[in-house]
Amino acid sequence: MTAETDAVPGPVAGPPLRRRGEALESAIHEAVLRQLTTDGYARLTMEGVAAAAQTGKAALYRRWTSKEELVMDALRASLPPAGPVPDTGSLRGDLLAVVAGLRAAMFSDLGAAVRAIMSELDHRRAHAFVAIVLERVVEPTTALIAEVLDRGTARGEVRPGAVTPLVTDVVPALMLYRIKMCGGDVVQLDPAEIVDEVLLPIVRP
Amino acid sequence: MTAETDAVPGPVAGPPLRRRGEALESAIHEAVLRQLTTDGYARLTMEGVAAAAQTGKAALYRRWTSKEELVMDALRASLPPAGPVPDTGSLRGDLLAVVAGLRAAMFSDLGAAVRAIMSELDHRRAHAFVAIVLERVVEPTTALIAEVLDRGTARGEVRPGAVTPLVTDVVPALMLYRIKMCGGDVVQLDPAEIVDEVLLPIVRP
Repeated sequence: MTAETDAVPGPVAGPPLRRRGEALESAIHEAVLRQLTTDGYARLTMEGVAAAAQTGKAALYRRWTSKEELVMDALRASLPPAGPVPDTGSLRGDLLAVVAGLRAAMFSDLGAAVRAIMSELDHRRAHAFVAIVLERVVEPTTALIAEVLDRGTARGEVRPGAVTPLVTDVVPALMLYRIKMCGGDVVQLDPAEIVDEVLLPIVRP
Repeated sequence: MTAETDAVPGPVAGPPLRRRGEALESAIHEAVLRQLTTDGYARLTMEGVAAAAQTGKAALYRRWTSKEELVMDALRASLPPAGPVPDTGSLRGDLLAVVAGLRAAMFSDLGAAVRAIMSELDHRRAHAFVAIVLERVVEPTTALIAEVLDRGTARGEVRPGAVTPLVTDVVPALMLYRIKMCGGDVVQLDPAEIVDEVLLPIVRP
């Protein structure tokens, strides 16, 4: 860990004065996400972020006491709200839209940054991160899937009682698993396969 | 990374002479797995392993040129062969046996060590590890599930064409996902739920 080294001292009070608080913070957040996607969490340092954001280490430590706090704050500020519930008129169409949307999110720069953290840290040491990802990514996603399945139940396209917490976990679980095992090969994540081979068979009447 | 530090020099040529090559190697492998489960991969060092195995750093470097090689070798030597295909006479019974066996393996010390590596390293930087886990854990597991489902197809308990690579990925995917999100709470991995809510509905005629 180089967290205590001083490889990139950088100016201390200068740059922060040149940019307003918000502009500086978003520049810092962007630098954090860039470093997460390129080098991963373990190699991310306050110094590296300060250098990339063209500010000083002191400007970072004035706002965040640790690398953990900085990264969590950058995630909270960057993760978008859940998308709208798709309404294509058919269960299959809605599920395809949800799965395609989730795949797009996972392969976005931000998604790559989140996956970099999730794949590097185990639950024991990443409790706070997992909590953010659960609250801002996992729960909205499973809620979206549950809503789509509930509408399908109302239309008689879903077997009553078929939708359980485990069933709504299947899509994110398969995606993260394939990304882990196939190295994020987008070809290994075909929304139609996930919907037609797994999700629809599970819930069909 | 402290890989180059010399925190625990330890005796260099002494202990290896006290133990035969195999005894020393298995002591070293045990020390590696212990360190993986307690401290994780990132904090595992050649020095720490040498100290735990009561040998010297030099004895390790004579056999393995790097921490990566040492850990991979310890995994190869420790991972057991796949268990026999269960044959309870019913698809549900066989699937329950496979899922329960996989859960037991995941929560064993060795399983915890493997999960520690898998959860810390992403594919880009853990290519070699993922290859071992794919070959020694993932492929035998999915092959076992596929065999059980094929027997079910022969008995008319499985819809012909239902068994795809994605379907055989569902069980390990759900397990790793729940462990990641729930912090390895064994209660969150009920074999009966996985079989009755997900697997059987997917394949039933």
